[in-house]
Amino acid sequence: MGWRAREWPLPATLGSMTTSGEPFVDRLARAMAATRSIACVGLDPVLEKLPAAAREGRSDVDAIGHFCEGVLQAVAGVVPVVKFQSACFERYSAAGVGKLHALIAQARELGLLTILDAKRGDIGVTAEHYAHAALVAAGADSLTVSPYLGFDTLEPYLAAAGGGKGLFVLVRTSNPGSDGLQSLTLADGRTVAVAVAEMAAEFGRKSMGANGLSSIGAVVGATKAGDAAALRRAMPDQVFLIPGFGAQGGKAEDIVPMLRARPLTGHASSLIEHGVLVTASRSVIYPTSIGDAAASWAEEVSKSAQNLNRELAQILNSGL
Amino acid sequence: MGWRAREWPLPATLGSMTTSGEPFVDRLARAMAATRSIACVGLDPVLEKLPAAAREGRSDVDAIGHFCEGVLQAVAGVVPVVKFQSACFERYSAAGVGKLHALIAQARELGLLTILDAKRGDIGVTAEHYAHAALVAAGADSLTVSPYLGFDTLEPYLAAAGGGKGLFVLVRTSNPGSDGLQSLTLADGRTVAVAVAEMAAEFGRKSMGANGLSSIGAVVGATKAGDAAALRRAMPDQVFLIPGFGAQGGKAEDIVPMLRARPLTGHASSLIEHGVLVTASRSVIYPTSIGDAAASWAEEVSKSAQNLNRELAQILNSGL
Repeated sequence: MGWRAREWPLPATLGSMTTSGEPFVDRLARAMAATRSIACVGLDPVLEKLPAAAREGRSDVDAIGHFCEGVLQAVAGVVPVVKFQSACFERYSAAGVGKLHALIAQARELGLLTILDAKRGDIGVTAEHYAHAALVAAGADSLTVSPYLGFDTLEPYLAAAGGGKGLFVLVRTSNPGSDGLQSLTLADGRTVAVAVAEMAAEFGRKSMGANGLSSIGAVVGATKAGDAAALRRAMPDQVFLIPGFGAQGGKAEDIVPMLRARPLTGHASSLIEHGVLVTASRSVIYPTSIGDAAASWAEEVSKSAQNLNRELAQILNSGL
Repeated sequence: MGWRAREWPLPATLGSMTTSGEPFVDRLARAMAATRSIACVGLDPVLEKLPAAAREGRSDVDAIGHFCEGVLQAVAGVVPVVKFQSACFERYSAAGVGKLHALIAQARELGLLTILDAKRGDIGVTAEHYAHAALVAAGADSLTVSPYLGFDTLEPYLAAAGGGKGLFVLVRTSNPGSDGLQSLTLADGRTVAVAVAEMAAEFGRKSMGANGLSSIGAVVGATKAGDAAALRRAMPDQVFLIPGFGAQGGKAEDIVPMLRARPLTGHASSLIEHGVLVTASRSVIYPTSIGDAAASWAEEVSKSAQNLNRELAQILNSGL
């Protein structure tokens, strides 16, 4: 086996990261400050891509669990947040879901904030069940949700686990076919995505942090830079969770127009004032610089995350 | 305990209901013919509503499983389809997901077609994972999906489990707040819901049954009767999965404008030609006619389903 993640020294400030009740966006601000990073590492584990050493002698779901543990240890203290792709675990039925929940708990123990990327959306009492499933049973700090059924359906998530959890509403996604619905033009000239953005901003006022930003953020793909300025105007107080950077073709110049321009009033300058959390998965968790050299894998993952941090720091510097 | 569902005699035709590869919509047509029913019973089990006899001496998740088993036995042979609300099981973590999968298998053994109501929606390879999770790992015959990310994201479901599975695309939902997005007017005069309906109809051509209808159906709430005629025009070959009848306020006159007018060419008259599958949950699985009389519970559930069948038969008669 040999594939052991090294122990990463945790900054002392990370210990209290999971304080319940404190608004998600304030916890996010502290985590960004502690790691000096606006990066999120996505855990989309796929069996075929795991290093052989992670699979050896393990069941499929145990191999995925072992691999993810290594990634968590490698990126703790390097980035503020990890994002779990629910589908990659759900495909392994109950065992996969059990593993997902254990990994979320482990991430939180390591001081990492967690996003459960499950894109849930349903009505009434069913939304309450999803809120419980994701934010209590799975114990994630935040969840991605769909706006198609209307923002009334997002209410139950605000109260879940006693409050203080975060949401990221799908507004503009990074896939080629997302234009089909999201780019349709309304009678008033707005696109569907901008209309959803305005609704998200209004809904977001129900869950503001002490830092003046909302715990209700938005998913905005890095590949949709043409819409970025309009979406930022519509959502001045939202943190954008930005997928599509790197592997899906999103570039630095796609991120710049998504940055918030205004400093946070009454607060010292802080990384969260830029209002972006950039998520990368494949480019970090499957580093190409080594083959199957098990011993150095975790170190390479950590280096990839640090490289991502440097790339993003350059974007912030150039964008201001 | 004492709460035992009676054994329901299965029509001989139901045995082959789960033939793999045969288009979902053709299997649905046979199941409707065999049961003479266009009803779907929704399993949205909530602990607080279970009869005391189902809970006695059981863990929460076992009580829900036991209750659902009783409902499945009570409605097998009475209705063609059951719909499982994924959230109600997900809230019990891995144990709940395991129970859900076992119940889906049991429903199929009883000759019931299954809908997994999970409203999934994600892009690319993630959609493949969800397709595998719902249609292979969970083994459902069909799945509810969200259109917000674009119809390219629904492609992976067509190939799952070797083909032949069904989808129901969220088009117009029954909750009050659904107007927020779905009723917005586009520059060309259509509503967002009608635009989605037209995309669903076009996408649906990729998965047509021998009977001339599509295995890609649509979710259209019974409480949105004002939109019904326009949605039926946009989706002539879609089966409408209709929630909101009964408990949520949908009435007979809301269903009538959703009925297909044209007979299926080249086929004997058949129930599926009406193009509607009406789903009811609370009004069937929690019958109000008895208190906690355990012994007769399953019989009352079966009677409620038969009452629903009669109500729907009257609608079909009045609507033609």
